[in-house]
Amino acid sequence: MDTDLDPNLDARQPHIGDAWGRVLARCWDAGAAPWSGVEVIERDDGMIEAHDASRYFAEPQDWSELERWGWEQAAGRILDVGCGGGRHAVPWLALGREVVGLEPSPEAVRVSRERGVEAVIGSVPTLPEGLGVFDTIALFGNNLGLLGGPAQAPEVLAALASVARPGARLIGKGMDPVEGGGAHAEYHAWNLRRGRARGQLRIRVRDRATTTPWFDYWLASPDEIAAVVAESVWTLEALERDPASPGYIACLRY
Amino acid sequence: MDTDLDPNLDARQPHIGDAWGRVLARCWDAGAAPWSGVEVIERDDGMIEAHDASRYFAEPQDWSELERWGWEQAAGRILDVGCGGGRHAVPWLALGREVVGLEPSPEAVRVSRERGVEAVIGSVPTLPEGLGVFDTIALFGNNLGLLGGPAQAPEVLAALASVARPGARLIGKGMDPVEGGGAHAEYHAWNLRRGRARGQLRIRVRDRATTTPWFDYWLASPDEIAAVVAESVWTLEALERDPASPGYIACLRY
Repeated sequence: MDTDLDPNLDARQPHIGDAWGRVLARCWDAGAAPWSGVEVIERDDGMIEAHDASRYFAEPQDWSELERWGWEQAAGRILDVGCGGGRHAVPWLALGREVVGLEPSPEAVRVSRERGVEAVIGSVPTLPEGLGVFDTIALFGNNLGLLGGPAQAPEVLAALASVARPGARLIGKGMDPVEGGGAHAEYHAWNLRRGRARGQLRIRVRDRATTTPWFDYWLASPDEIAAVVAESVWTLEALERDPASPGYIACLRY
Repeated sequence: MDTDLDPNLDARQPHIGDAWGRVLARCWDAGAAPWSGVEVIERDDGMIEAHDASRYFAEPQDWSELERWGWEQAAGRILDVGCGGGRHAVPWLALGREVVGLEPSPEAVRVSRERGVEAVIGSVPTLPEGLGVFDTIALFGNNLGLLGGPAQAPEVLAALASVARPGARLIGKGMDPVEGGGAHAEYHAWNLRRGRARGQLRIRVRDRATTTPWFDYWLASPDEIAAVVAESVWTLEALERDPASPGYIACLRY
């Protein structure tokens, strides 16, 4: 297709909007059927990936054993940080747990509410007011990545402590940025060169004409997690690794 | 996710590569299972779409009636322009037709060859040498879009005439750029403002770390097709519209 392209024709950026929530909602509105919503994630090195959004509606029996184990540890009043469409909150409610979902996407909040979850629009580190206090702060679905990076993590951990009861636990699922092939190794090296943590992803979700803003999502190693927790008001009580994947669950005590 | 982003951190462009062929080949290598390959198409206004690549392996009974009708018109020695993974060529071979596939993607050519198609790497308007002459020039799967635009179409039509036997037919499937909602209307208006045809898409296919170059794919109205054909060595013999969609088949005689 060696057409004569006008090199002066500039490509435009997509509009900022609730791209992720729209994909999630499209999937939910189609009965969470496989591939009824396609999540397109763009990384700032030009990498793009497309995923079946129905994974956000997977039920406990479909999760990894580790994720299910971590999820079962949640007790008392739970803050579900980045609750999405209620993947973890809905089955918590079925067990009689008290849950508040926190989620920046208006469409995802709409879906969570339709499913019976008390969901609030908001995100870390600037929590909305009036959340109250919690016994468990939950960051599942790799949402330990919402710590953002070594520079942002202290503020996020402090914000989450501000809504934690004394003795509360923070339970988060993380992913070790192990070398997953050439493309990732190159990205990790680029991150280190520009003064970022190795697995600190800068990504955005794109859907049709809209995109989320770029945001940082930190795939931290267990050692990196231990280091930022050591500088916080939290104590690292346990870190359980998945024998079959780079995933782990970190349990922090306030 | 109101993290403190460094505004000086620039996003990179993906690497130029055979993104489309890789998606197609991934799908083929997975038995053409639905969603085993996801085709991510980016338009130069920031619009992005994700499609199931298994549509490129759909069999004649899955095509629209119009596409099947056009496909059945192909006679003699056929040049399948933009043959992809052999969607149209493989069933032509099964009918005993003689087909040469033309395709710029090395991976798609590999897949076509595995399926028994004599496929050649190349594209319009600069055809590879030694193709010989053809009785039918076929542009299916909306590949009338490879005319590129009003400025490029004369060169493409001339190139295709250079491999046409006297009396040969060019059979192409096109798509009328009817208003399909706000996002497209805005794109059409933007195209007209910058001196392009209304439905002249500038797109690229992205896969993981790679992208195709940007290329022009022209969704022309039947009137626009008639106008460029009138200026060429071809004669417009018939234009059959799909009653159920914006699709049409144009039949040209050399």
